[in-house]
Amino acid sequence: MKKYMKKIICVLSGGMDSTTMLYHLIEQGNEVQAISFNYGQRHKVELEKAAATCSKLKIPHKIIDISFIKELVSNSALTSDMEVPEGHYADENMKNTVVPNRNMIMASIAMGYAVNLGYDAVALGVHSGDHAIYPDCRPEFIEKLNEVAKIANYRPVEILAPFLTMDKGDIATLGKSLGVDFSLTHTCYKGQETPCGVCGACVERQEAFEKAESVDPLTS
Amino acid sequence: MKKYMKKIICVLSGGMDSTTMLYHLIEQGNEVQAISFNYGQRHKVELEKAAATCSKLKIPHKIIDISFIKELVSNSALTSDMEVPEGHYADENMKNTVVPNRNMIMASIAMGYAVNLGYDAVALGVHSGDHAIYPDCRPEFIEKLNEVAKIANYRPVEILAPFLTMDKGDIATLGKSLGVDFSLTHTCYKGQETPCGVCGACVERQEAFEKAESVDPLTS
Repeated sequence: MKKYMKKIICVLSGGMDSTTMLYHLIEQGNEVQAISFNYGQRHKVELEKAAATCSKLKIPHKIIDISFIKELVSNSALTSDMEVPEGHYADENMKNTVVPNRNMIMASIAMGYAVNLGYDAVALGVHSGDHAIYPDCRPEFIEKLNEVAKIANYRPVEILAPFLTMDKGDIATLGKSLGVDFSLTHTCYKGQETPCGVCGACVERQEAFEKAESVDPLTS
Repeated sequence: MKKYMKKIICVLSGGMDSTTMLYHLIEQGNEVQAISFNYGQRHKVELEKAAATCSKLKIPHKIIDISFIKELVSNSALTSDMEVPEGHYADENMKNTVVPNRNMIMASIAMGYAVNLGYDAVALGVHSGDHAIYPDCRPEFIEKLNEVAKIANYRPVEILAPFLTMDKGDIATLGKSLGVDFSLTHTCYKGQETPCGVCGACVERQEAFEKAESVDPLTS
């Protein structure tokens, strides 16, 4: 028995979380399309990985240019020349990887797309490991976003966050069981094809693969 | 006694509603910046008017390109080659002037800007005349958007809609009292500098000026 039978726009960063979510939503029997965002991130290789995953899974994929966000936002290490902080993801210094209101901007655009296509839902790959640092990854954000998404258009749109209470280790474990091709994902904030191994994102990825008793194809 | 003393990002379309709101928020003693959006609208002249108003009022103004919205949205007469409907704005045929989720997308981006600048609020010029047709102009939308805007970032952002319960005639009346330069506003959906006089937007503008016992400088 499939849990969902919905038409879903999946916000796909090209990282391991949203990529695993894409596999999961397809496996659950949903009709899925993916949307990715170019926001001037220095780790643009993730967009190529996102496209490669969609091509492999044969699902429609759109990349939307929201690089205007660079103009609005001067304080994030992800979009500026500021040094990417090293160390653990949950550390205080990770706060400068925040792009203000990024998830709400991306969700709003994905919602417009869903309405236009007659789709039911937008799915975000947020998980519990993001909660400490990113307010727009927390359960109360998803809940309130859902409230506005219900009434913002003629068609209600549901905001799904199937990994909201899972951590990155749980996601790596699920991904392993679903046969996710993790070679087509990217995590490192520094933007090289080969993970730097020392930025917060790399450290978290390594921990996730260890927890899943799995091997990261990018570093093996 | 000033009603507000806030730092506000004003979403300025260049139409008479948001332009009047800008004057109003300044008159109320707030610190204001304006943001406008190029979403591929055929009535682009409104962006030039918005810039002219900000220049006249000496406030910072940013125009953000969100023309990606054209790619996502195929069914709106405002962004495609579809015929702009004539007749009264509140008619059923005005539904094809809806760009899905437009206000939420614009508000989300303005919120990101507000957070980055350390501003308190985002103001939208929605009014009661919009409610019938546009779900994202209704009081419940503003209310729910406010709920999510409070918690989406480290700083809460307030969503203001000072004209929410006013109609376009009330706005024209207020604008008259504030000395708004209505020659620096644009309303016609067809995009000519000179109003066509027959599209729904033009019809509503004429009615508003009549109700305010005022004369529209664009047609006089």
